[in-house]
Amino acid sequence: MPSPETPPPAFAALRVRLKEIDDLDAAQRVLGWDQETMMPPGGAAARGEVLATLSRLGHERLVDDELLALLRELESWARERPREDDGAAIVRVVRRDVDRARRVPPELTAQLARASSDALPVWKQAREDDDFPAFAPHLERNLELRRRLAACFPETEHPYDALMDFYEPGLTTAAARATFAELRAGLVALIADVRAAEPPAPPGGPFDVDEQRALALEMARAIGFDERCWRLDRSVHPFSQSIARTDVRVTGRFSEHELGGLFAVLHEVGHGLYEHQQDPALDRTTLGTGVSMGIHESQSRLWENRVGRSRPFWSHWLPRAQERLPALRTLDLGGFLRAINAVRPTLIRVDADEATYPLHIVLRFELELALLDGTLAVADLPAAWNQGMRELLGVEVPDDRRGVLQDIHWAFGEFGYFPSYALGDIAAAQLWEAATADLPQLEDDLARGDASALREWLAARVHRVGRRLEPGELLRRVTGSTYDPAPLLRHLRAKFAELYGAPAR
Amino acid sequence: MPSPETPPPAFAALRVRLKEIDDLDAAQRVLGWDQETMMPPGGAAARGEVLATLSRLGHERLVDDELLALLRELESWARERPREDDGAAIVRVVRRDVDRARRVPPELTAQLARASSDALPVWKQAREDDDFPAFAPHLERNLELRRRLAACFPETEHPYDALMDFYEPGLTTAAARATFAELRAGLVALIADVRAAEPPAPPGGPFDVDEQRALALEMARAIGFDERCWRLDRSVHPFSQSIARTDVRVTGRFSEHELGGLFAVLHEVGHGLYEHQQDPALDRTTLGTGVSMGIHESQSRLWENRVGRSRPFWSHWLPRAQERLPALRTLDLGGFLRAINAVRPTLIRVDADEATYPLHIVLRFELELALLDGTLAVADLPAAWNQGMRELLGVEVPDDRRGVLQDIHWAFGEFGYFPSYALGDIAAAQLWEAATADLPQLEDDLARGDASALREWLAARVHRVGRRLEPGELLRRVTGSTYDPAPLLRHLRAKFAELYGAPAR
Repeated sequence: MPSPETPPPAFAALRVRLKEIDDLDAAQRVLGWDQETMMPPGGAAARGEVLATLSRLGHERLVDDELLALLRELESWARERPREDDGAAIVRVVRRDVDRARRVPPELTAQLARASSDALPVWKQAREDDDFPAFAPHLERNLELRRRLAACFPETEHPYDALMDFYEPGLTTAAARATFAELRAGLVALIADVRAAEPPAPPGGPFDVDEQRALALEMARAIGFDERCWRLDRSVHPFSQSIARTDVRVTGRFSEHELGGLFAVLHEVGHGLYEHQQDPALDRTTLGTGVSMGIHESQSRLWENRVGRSRPFWSHWLPRAQERLPALRTLDLGGFLRAINAVRPTLIRVDADEATYPLHIVLRFELELALLDGTLAVADLPAAWNQGMRELLGVEVPDDRRGVLQDIHWAFGEFGYFPSYALGDIAAAQLWEAATADLPQLEDDLARGDASALREWLAARVHRVGRRLEPGELLRRVTGSTYDPAPLLRHLRAKFAELYGAPAR
Repeated sequence: MPSPETPPPAFAALRVRLKEIDDLDAAQRVLGWDQETMMPPGGAAARGEVLATLSRLGHERLVDDELLALLRELESWARERPREDDGAAIVRVVRRDVDRARRVPPELTAQLARASSDALPVWKQAREDDDFPAFAPHLERNLELRRRLAACFPETEHPYDALMDFYEPGLTTAAARATFAELRAGLVALIADVRAAEPPAPPGGPFDVDEQRALALEMARAIGFDERCWRLDRSVHPFSQSIARTDVRVTGRFSEHELGGLFAVLHEVGHGLYEHQQDPALDRTTLGTGVSMGIHESQSRLWENRVGRSRPFWSHWLPRAQERLPALRTLDLGGFLRAINAVRPTLIRVDADEATYPLHIVLRFELELALLDGTLAVADLPAAWNQGMRELLGVEVPDDRRGVLQDIHWAFGEFGYFPSYALGDIAAAQLWEAATADLPQLEDDLARGDASALREWLAARVHRVGRRLEPGELLRRVTGSTYDPAPLLRHLRAKFAELYGAPAR
């Protein structure tokens, strides 16, 4: 028998198969990026076909019997090795992916895809027309199919466990409920305090878009963007797509009227850095990528909010911003920070500030659970939405367009995805506490425009781990606990106390 | 037995397989385009791996035994149908592709790829250093492997037949020899006459590159470019890549000092139009694309030279060009036409004018044959090159950098490709004679900036045929003969007689 130090021949055979699977995925990433940024509209139909073919070929390879046989052959070898050993992690994580993929019948996968693509145009029109009943049958169909998808994993305690697992491996509904209940209570109280004061207005423009782009690039470079391995392009909605560890694409969109585009670039560069700083040893293994949507979002939110809305960061960047954007010259650092950190409950999730954003997520999480449980009927969803917005944020929803119809996720049938956003906020705060404990000079660094120590800390503690550890394990190792909203609540209380003199509970 | 009108079930199964093969190819086209236009340099290594995987998957599908079995099952059905019937053409052409692909052992394919990628950096360095001996061993290796490739097709009369067939199906070396001998004799005589006069200088700049780009886009739109289905981007070397019939990408590069970038865009739009105007019935069959490199080049050269250097075209466009490019205001139409049609024997193929260009190709064709025959040793190639340049173009080659080392093709091992360029010039002239016979108003149209009749004529006679007919069959159908240099020679004689008063032999 080979010693645990020498990978058995089956491991080399496994690696060959994983390269092929990873390459097919990389091709889809290029095609997806191109579709959003470059493709002329006439290319859409053909692109859909090509992407479907590549996706099918990748899936076929993942559920191939010979791959499973190789994994079985390697199991005892892998179990003798340390949990984070590359070989052990590859066998374990791929086995999990394979098992999950094999559980879903191809017919159901096809139905899910068809239901999404049928629902998408209907949702768009319904949102435009403020006509929830037009969308409702598609939402029913998506729910029904997702219930069937969840039923492929009967060992889970709650069907939502099975759905959330696609985005956040290992997180249970019970754990998420507890986390979100604590988050909800803390934020509702905090916001009630902060809202007493009239929030400062956001910085007033006009802001030249080319100057904003140049400034965003300067900031991005300070974080880790470099032209040898990165691109910044325009797209309708900002996003990040890593084609390879050394080929990372982020997009942005700037408006003359506000600075949201700057923060969006910081956000996307945070996502990109997570992929760029993966361990080369995991290249083409399917493990050299972000471990979950929640941890991914923690990286984007960390750079967008924890760095990008902080006093040290802007003490360096505000003078530079004022050179490029003269409209900012009327603000001093304190006024600018108050303006970019204003708390203002709003109707639209994607426009929400750092403090109110997670409550938009809590609402969606609670509604998804109720829909899946059957305790909430689709027909009653708009009323439940509006009631939730009233309770959580104190706002009245004037129409479904700005209410229950605002997000694309349910049109795609992606139940279980929304929690990732709030988990990202939570984890970002946990990681920030750990980073500042390890790096006492961090604020000084940022005030000098130097993000290298933070970047390297993230590489060592989070990025290079890839998918070797599950998100909960990773967080526990780095921060001492799994998802825990306390650091986020502490941060927000302290921050608003400083900015607005709100009571620090 | 099913009637010839009802495709047998095997035909549907064949179509499914062809879609997959075509989709894998389309993915490679996107990745290739991205590599040349968008990819940051850091992405190169990973991109090479992904492209190799997609190429291998496509090849595996093409040589799959079940595909061959389907084609065999369909043969008698296909033979009962008209030659151009979609079903008959698909079975026949794919069978040919499959037979050719199956003849080449995978080891040889891998060796060919490795030899190319080994040779490429050596050739680059050798060209920079003017050091042919450094490149010679790689050229030997490429030659040896191509001889082995040719030997996979022992039924051919000459090994060069087998190589040329990859680019120009059905063309024999014997036919190419005869064609190029006639072309050579005609052009050498013509150029001797024209060279008596000192050629006019090319139009002098400076030419604003943004204005050139805007003008190129206006011209491209008049030819058939529209933003719904096309893109124009920058790249180091202009090229055209069709991702799908309705997603065509061309690239250009403009210099402040000369107008070559304008003509390059016309050239690439010509290539693009051939793909854009394919018959939708051939989508995802592998037949809905250009039939050969020679016919493809005929489309680019037709728009670049026959339209783009003509009096009617510039009688419309010169005033517009003069608005955007003030340096052109010193020239009248006659002076401008003389300047852009100057004949000036040069060392570098890609800089050559319409009349001398084909002689650069004749030289390469003759040398490739001699190398493959073994009548010319690699060590003697530079001397043979320089002697050929003297005989054909009357120029002295000062060094190998500007001589035998100038082109990338032999570094890639692509023997048999060069003829396509001259075949394109030849076919463009044949097609132009046929088009002007069918469209007596064509010159008037072009003088009004209207290219629609020519575009539609090309669609109907050439583009929509796709790969249903071999290049020789296509040309015979449209022009009455296979590749025939007489129309090109007639055109050049008449043109130079008009421009320079050279004797019209």
